[in-house]
Amino acid sequence: MKQSEILQFLQQVAKQKISPENALLKMQDNGFTELEYAKIDTERTARTGYPEVIYGAGKSAAQITGIVQAMKQHEQPILATRVAADKAAAVLTQEPQLKYDEVAHTLVLSVAPPERIGEIAIVTAGTSDINVAEEAAVTAELFGNEVTRIYDVGVAGIQRLFSKLDLIRRANVVIVIAGMEGALTSVVGGLVDVPVIAVPTSVGYGSHLNGLTPLLSMLNSCAAGISVVNIDNGFGAAYNASMINHLAGGKQK
Amino acid sequence: MKQSEILQFLQQVAKQKISPENALLKMQDNGFTELEYAKIDTERTARTGYPEVIYGAGKSAAQITGIVQAMKQHEQPILATRVAADKAAAVLTQEPQLKYDEVAHTLVLSVAPPERIGEIAIVTAGTSDINVAEEAAVTAELFGNEVTRIYDVGVAGIQRLFSKLDLIRRANVVIVIAGMEGALTSVVGGLVDVPVIAVPTSVGYGSHLNGLTPLLSMLNSCAAGISVVNIDNGFGAAYNASMINHLAGGKQK
Amino acid sequence: MKQSEILQFLQQVAKQKISPENALLKMQDNGFTELEYAKIDTERTARTGYPEVIYGAGKSAAQITGIVQAMKQHEQPILATRVAADKAAAVLTQEPQLKYDEVAHTLVLSVAPPERIGEIAIVTAGTSDINVAEEAAVTAELFGNEVTRIYDVGVAGIQRLFSKLDLIRRANVVIVIAGMEGALTSVVGGLVDVPVIAVPTSVGYGSHLNGLTPLLSMLNSCAAGISVVNIDNGFGAAYNASMINHLAGGKQK
Amino acid sequence: MKQSEILQFLQQVAKQKISPENALLKMQDNGFTELEYAKIDTERTARTGYPEVIYGAGKSAAQITGIVQAMKQHEQPILATRVAADKAAAVLTQEPQLKYDEVAHTLVLSVAPPERIGEIAIVTAGTSDINVAEEAAVTAELFGNEVTRIYDVGVAGIQRLFSKLDLIRRANVVIVIAGMEGALTSVVGGLVDVPVIAVPTSVGYGSHLNGLTPLLSMLNSCAAGISVVNIDNGFGAAYNASMINHLAGGKQK
Amino acid sequence: MKQSEILQFLQQVAKQKISPENALLKMQDNGFTELEYAKIDTERTARTGYPEVIYGAGKSAAQITGIVQAMKQHEQPILATRVAADKAAAVLTQEPQLKYDEVAHTLVLSVAPPERIGEIAIVTAGTSDINVAEEAAVTAELFGNEVTRIYDVGVAGIQRLFSKLDLIRRANVVIVIAGMEGALTSVVGGLVDVPVIAVPTSVGYGSHLNGLTPLLSMLNSCAAGISVVNIDNGFGAAYNASMINHLAGGKQK
Amino acid sequence: MKQSEILQFLQQVAKQKISPENALLKMQDNGFTELEYAKIDTERTARTGYPEVIYGAGKSAAQITGIVQAMKQHEQPILATRVAADKAAAVLTQEPQLKYDEVAHTLVLSVAPPERIGEIAIVTAGTSDINVAEEAAVTAELFGNEVTRIYDVGVAGIQRLFSKLDLIRRANVVIVIAGMEGALTSVVGGLVDVPVIAVPTSVGYGSHLNGLTPLLSMLNSCAAGISVVNIDNGFGAAYNASMINHLAGGKQK
Amino acid sequence: MKQSEILQFLQQVAKQKISPENALLKMQDNGFTELEYAKIDTERTARTGYPEVIYGAGKSAAQITGIVQAMKQHEQPILATRVAADKAAAVLTQEPQLKYDEVAHTLVLSVAPPERIGEIAIVTAGTSDINVAEEAAVTAELFGNEVTRIYDVGVAGIQRLFSKLDLIRRANVVIVIAGMEGALTSVVGGLVDVPVIAVPTSVGYGSHLNGLTPLLSMLNSCAAGISVVNIDNGFGAAYNASMINHLAGGKQK
Amino acid sequence: MKQSEILQFLQQVAKQKISPENALLKMQDNGFTELEYAKIDTERTARTGYPEVIYGAGKSAAQITGIVQAMKQHEQPILATRVAADKAAAVLTQEPQLKYDEVAHTLVLSVAPPERIGEIAIVTAGTSDINVAEEAAVTAELFGNEVTRIYDVGVAGIQRLFSKLDLIRRANVVIVIAGMEGALTSVVGGLVDVPVIAVPTSVGYGSHLNGLTPLLSMLNSCAAGISVVNIDNGFGAAYNASMINHLAGGKQK
Repeated sequence: MKQSEILQFLQQVAKQKISPENALLKMQDNGFTELEYAKIDTERTARTGYPEVIYGAGKSAAQITGIVQAMKQHEQPILATRVAADKAAAVLTQEPQLKYDEVAHTLVLSVAPPERIGEIAIVTAGTSDINVAEEAAVTAELFGNEVTRIYDVGVAGIQRLFSKLDLIRRANVVIVIAGMEGALTSVVGGLVDVPVIAVPTSVGYGSHLNGLTPLLSMLNSCAAGISVVNIDNGFGAAYNASMINHLAGGKQK
Repeated sequence: MKQSEILQFLQQVAKQKISPENALLKMQDNGFTELEYAKIDTERTARTGYPEVIYGAGKSAAQITGIVQAMKQHEQPILATRVAADKAAAVLTQEPQLKYDEVAHTLVLSVAPPERIGEIAIVTAGTSDINVAEEAAVTAELFGNEVTRIYDVGVAGIQRLFSKLDLIRRANVVIVIAGMEGALTSVVGGLVDVPVIAVPTSVGYGSHLNGLTPLLSMLNSCAAGISVVNIDNGFGAAYNASMINHLAGGKQK
Repeated sequence: MKQSEILQFLQQVAKQKISPENALLKMQDNGFTELEYAKIDTERTARTGYPEVIYGAGKSAAQITGIVQAMKQHEQPILATRVAADKAAAVLTQEPQLKYDEVAHTLVLSVAPPERIGEIAIVTAGTSDINVAEEAAVTAELFGNEVTRIYDVGVAGIQRLFSKLDLIRRANVVIVIAGMEGALTSVVGGLVDVPVIAVPTSVGYGSHLNGLTPLLSMLNSCAAGISVVNIDNGFGAAYNASMINHLAGGKQK
Repeated sequence: MKQSEILQFLQQVAKQKISPENALLKMQDNGFTELEYAKIDTERTARTGYPEVIYGAGKSAAQITGIVQAMKQHEQPILATRVAADKAAAVLTQEPQLKYDEVAHTLVLSVAPPERIGEIAIVTAGTSDINVAEEAAVTAELFGNEVTRIYDVGVAGIQRLFSKLDLIRRANVVIVIAGMEGALTSVVGGLVDVPVIAVPTSVGYGSHLNGLTPLLSMLNSCAAGISVVNIDNGFGAAYNASMINHLAGGKQK
Repeated sequence: MKQSEILQFLQQVAKQKISPENALLKMQDNGFTELEYAKIDTERTARTGYPEVIYGAGKSAAQITGIVQAMKQHEQPILATRVAADKAAAVLTQEPQLKYDEVAHTLVLSVAPPERIGEIAIVTAGTSDINVAEEAAVTAELFGNEVTRIYDVGVAGIQRLFSKLDLIRRANVVIVIAGMEGALTSVVGGLVDVPVIAVPTSVGYGSHLNGLTPLLSMLNSCAAGISVVNIDNGFGAAYNASMINHLAGGKQK
Repeated sequence: MKQSEILQFLQQVAKQKISPENALLKMQDNGFTELEYAKIDTERTARTGYPEVIYGAGKSAAQITGIVQAMKQHEQPILATRVAADKAAAVLTQEPQLKYDEVAHTLVLSVAPPERIGEIAIVTAGTSDINVAEEAAVTAELFGNEVTRIYDVGVAGIQRLFSKLDLIRRANVVIVIAGMEGALTSVVGGLVDVPVIAVPTSVGYGSHLNGLTPLLSMLNSCAAGISVVNIDNGFGAAYNASMINHLAGGKQK
Repeated sequence: MKQSEILQFLQQVAKQKISPENALLKMQDNGFTELEYAKIDTERTARTGYPEVIYGAGKSAAQITGIVQAMKQHEQPILATRVAADKAAAVLTQEPQLKYDEVAHTLVLSVAPPERIGEIAIVTAGTSDINVAEEAAVTAELFGNEVTRIYDVGVAGIQRLFSKLDLIRRANVVIVIAGMEGALTSVVGGLVDVPVIAVPTSVGYGSHLNGLTPLLSMLNSCAAGISVVNIDNGFGAAYNASMINHLAGGKQK
Repeated sequence: MKQSEILQFLQQVAKQKISPENALLKMQDNGFTELEYAKIDTERTARTGYPEVIYGAGKSAAQITGIVQAMKQHEQPILATRVAADKAAAVLTQEPQLKYDEVAHTLVLSVAPPERIGEIAIVTAGTSDINVAEEAAVTAELFGNEVTRIYDVGVAGIQRLFSKLDLIRRANVVIVIAGMEGALTSVVGGLVDVPVIAVPTSVGYGSHLNGLTPLLSMLNSCAAGISVVNIDNGFGAAYNASMINHLAGGKQK
């Protein structure tokens, strides 16, 4: 609660417009809905500008369904990430108005077509990084951003990247998604004048260490302007990029 | 080079205003100054919006001095980071107009007092994180940002953080700097609606692993909107934050 | 054996009440039951205050059944942890009076309803941590402790935690269970005046490293009063908490 | 703040005994003293039962002195850990009433001789672990606990441990401090019926990995009732043990 | 593009033989074929001497088929590595002229029987390393190299290696493939006067760490002349060896 | 070849009893049988005192069968380790005189009942370590050693170990097999006057790191006289112990 | 204590030859000398065949001197390892009859020239491994073993090893000491029929990881008969080898 | 020894031109010079084409001097790497004809100015990588290769690399030396048609892990044709490159 809000409560109490007990109750309004297995953060949009998002990987279909049903009552867009196809099917039998994306592994309920401003460029090094890229794209679009997809432009054939450079430079923020050694991040970082959010992926083998190698590589980039999120965290990158794009006010470059 | 620039050259050649050989020469203008031991990226401001910055840790005083002298000819602000006190003293005997900051370990040459827009909040968990924080603050101020410093508000005494929350929430972007377990990042991330850039520090001991523990912790934050830079990389966080703050146009919240 | 016990034996020998050979035999009474594949520590309750517990993960259903049958002869409560559902079903066909908990993955035989003193607070950061939490809860209750469950109060929505703070502060010892970055531990640790036992969980992905990240995070907490057990070790935390709660004599705060 | 305290404020406002603005001010009383480089948590004793402790490793002598001077005004015992001998000497020129312990590396200001209840057993595997043990002992004694020191009883000569077992078993809580492979922890854990707090030390070489080996070993102990703190963290273990010993009410076993 | 090529374009423009716009278009000819999910690097043979190779592990059968069909139009040999048997079967129903190797897990389309020069020796430590060795052999043969296979000559029975030494010394480059501790690499490296390319394999268990142990071992070899590729990367070793063998001009030693 | 053997050949050549070409051929007799996928080290018994052993994990049933058939011609005992039950079944259809052990996962062909001298004590910390222990026991018995099995005597109930100490002390060499934290090794090492071979096992979870924790623990044991083999390597420990036991000449202590 | 010894005490008590209290006292004779900072294991020779050895690295000169003085009263040979030159000098001023070895970094007090049986071969890969080798040699000689030194025979020039093979094969046990990748261990292991004790050393750089690379390499050796001790642990290897050599009864091969 | 050489000996014996004893002696000619602390591999040039090189890091000035003096008798070029300045000074007082390079940290004795063929391109990402690059350059030049140095062309300012591309493409083999994230390797690898040898350097901080990050990055490069040597191993890269360049016969591209 902001201090101005607390002051308002205190002034109402002083004016006897509200009893001390009721003021306490309202000040205690916790801002969440309590289920047996979850406490849904209904105050989140007010606090951080974005609704709570369901991380589907560790939850059962029944738990996801229950949380969706509780969230529907607050009329906000719903996004569940990392939902496997069979789990999604089980949820959809209960909540058929959700939409499942088989590449991004997301379940989405759009309240209204959001106005999209922008834009956010999503760049991948390879074909195998597309799942992560689409998780980012679905998230960014749901949160009201124009998205430009530029896939499979890794540095082994760097002419592919250069041919798309004008397209990338148009964005307010660039998400670079790469497995292997993640070198694409540094090359892009050296060529643009906006923030780059790097997403290492688990695409690789052997000493790739399930994505630790590109993660470390991205954290040690010789190019400035790069920050990094967890391995395969397309959602997190898009959430961050959306914040930046909205700060930029959707201005077209 | 942008494609429109290449087209311009080609059109000038077609109109015989410039010979093919001269066009090649100009197209080849590499955008860097060549020293024996370094190639200074003089085109960087045009390309990325920021001048090249000297990473002082691996260079001798003579090398730093040489690069500073080459950069001075392009009339842009100069920033050298990670310059130890004795190395700085040696540089200053040659280039006395530089200014050394003993906490931030930076050498700075400001061309003109930059207009500062903002703002960027820099938040640290402890007293020992201040060196990294000041590297970030010096960088951000040189690049034209208003900076709010909020130091030593780690979660072990969380009332310290809450008392500064209104101050933090005023910023366009928040830099959170923490050693130990880095928990401050997640708490701040859950309370603001702007991007958070997390900087793990090497402050700690034992299983802290010289900063790997808060680095991993920050990458796995349960709060969204957080991206991470390398351990102790105050400069990188500030560079990134400056980009975001300028995209936001310095609007006051 | 305590030295006073040895002295007793020696005195009985001196008084010729027992032969040297018999004394040796009794002093050698090893305090365990020997099966082909196990030596059951039947003296454990006397020595440490708690019966031996069966760690089910590495044992076959036949081995678990055999150990249960041997332990039943000593009339003490029986607890088997980490028993998968199909393995439990096989054990139950032989020993149907055991009770299987599908969330905690425990098999329990209560000798008598234990008097429960308390209390122990079990706090989780997310919904996905509940399996580990229930392993702790079942263990703590079997060992005679009142348990308060406070689930899904991670720091991304910190108002959820604060609304439950009075409840948490009532306990003699708090178990905090968290995956991701484990930041909840430090926040709770800074707000209570009793020992906190931290349990990292394997809930997470990528650089989470199957729980090593919250483990390291908890070990490096900036809050004092926190000690840590192995990843997912709900049983160990509850065992420890029970010892502390009983030392406190079940006093109500 | 407790909810009952908030209610009190609200009731005073309702009764016009205090203005809304003053109520806000008092509710905002942040509970810390603000220095340029630190925010001292003066509310900590009320909140967690223990005063804030100064971690000396990352701070200058001037910073330690400044914090000590600020804390002195609240008349509570002062403890600074990890203070190197030369840094301590510098602090003592300013604050000569502090007492420096050359083995424990602590600076202490006792307000009054605390009543010591107990007891806490501190057990080390080797001679080289004594520095860590004394950090724990100094901490525990300052916080009002009787301490029994049992040093150099590692399992390579297990008769040394058994000869001290009656002494160890008298304690309400046992701190086991060991480097090398840390096996002493499991052996002690299997022989006592009170909580064991394990402290791995950095004593070892090669694959000892500066203490990671005994840390991992202790976390995976086959004995129950063991929880672990960071490598060399004697202070943390003593803080935790003190909480448990005081919950036990200093009862003599 | 080489600078001489750019000059040619510029000269043609100067001579009005080509319009500036067309010159730009040709200079922009990006050298790749764009599919929805991939950008095939068709210029690769010109640039690096070798066609692009399909890494099959992260791609669906449909994606592999699509890329094969696009590459067929450029009339170059096609190689797909890491194709599982069932995925290969699905591709073969669409593109039956490909040939699948069940040991090497490769799909190959040879345009014409290549002239093989040589030679490259492929040496393995054990029987279990043969899958990796055959991936290397198939690659090397497709790229026009004579291959000598010398399998199961690990150092535990070093007479097996010595009996084949004359055979190994005949090659222009030696690929050594080994799991376990990879000691064969150093022994071979000390006995030949040509480059050795070392391939660690994931054959082993326990502290073998899925191949990290031989990888580290090979990187620290006491013999000079050894360079290393990723774990199980038979393709990469053969690609490299082929380059060296062709530089040597296929001369017979 | 020993130098005396080479001299013999040279003398026979000098005496014209053998032609130089035939001498070379015999000196080149490589001491192995060559299959397509393996080179069987038939000289191994002469060189190291033990026949080659088949490591079954990375080989197909067909390969194991082929190697067994080749080895049978040299009339030596055959041992294959790490053979899964289904693979063993396939081998047994071809070579039914082999004997499969379902706990040890070994296939054995004994040429003649070996004289067993001894003895070797095999000690495990828990029930779950028995698979590894039986791999060791089967190996040791095949190689002609008396084996004493002492299972499930981990230090959490140390009286179990002490009751078996006389039995353990009778051996010429002790194999200690333990998962979890491996503390049993140090305790045994401190109590016996013969070499201890430690085998860490993969029994554990979380920060156990699949056996790295007891491996590191054993390497850093505070007791002397301990050496370590790879995780789960029961065969290697027994091979080593057999060498030592035979050096001791089977003397009974 | 052995059970036969306990029985003796009991029988003496039964015969009234000793009072129960005195019997307890004697049975409690702990077998160690207690200093302030150490408990010296004086029963160790009886229990394990070897006197306690002082690990000098973590102890002050005063502590080493004190322990030496206490041990001298038991008239057994004294060995202190890892004693730096300056620390040794300080000890020698107090205890001048000790002998310091500047290569092995050992302090030794020989009671009587021990009969040396043998033999133990100590083999190093390089010149830089000699410090560790001499620690092993000094230890082995003090404990009564003939030692053969074979230094700098690493596999990069394998003819050096083969020329010494007859010498190595004469030993009852071989200690192989190697840094870098440790490949020498496997080659030696495949050529001898006695136990090989491998000592990885910290000689190397970069991905050598201070000795972890040869440690892992040795643990995963393809040759059987190898066991491993900690990095740089020459003492431990010699201790172990001495046990084996003495079991072999010093028989000459 | 080659088999043809053995046959020659045997034939001489058969013809009585040499006695069996003398033949054995000559066949045993071990090909090394034996010092107290080293066995110098004098046969190395014959066997591998290159003389033995002295790795100076782990050796004393006296040992280096001794080895140099022994090698001088075989009239081959002498190279010692990793020789610190003070150690070099001590060697030079004894062997003043050696030449010390203060950047490369090498001591060199050239027998005769070697004919240089080539060429080898040595490319670094930054100024701080130059020490490693010069170790490579000195080595390559001593071994008879033309070297082209291209320093400080990291991908953060990729126009610097492109401007030097024609120069790089002229080489027979390219050595890429980079710290930070090592991305330069992949970019170069995608642009050339000759082997690339990658050298990670220890230039970086934090999660750079002293060079492990670029090492892992290079091993996982998305570009083919890259092989990797140990961190900072400029010598090893040059040795390897020299082999390849000489195989190419010094042909000019």
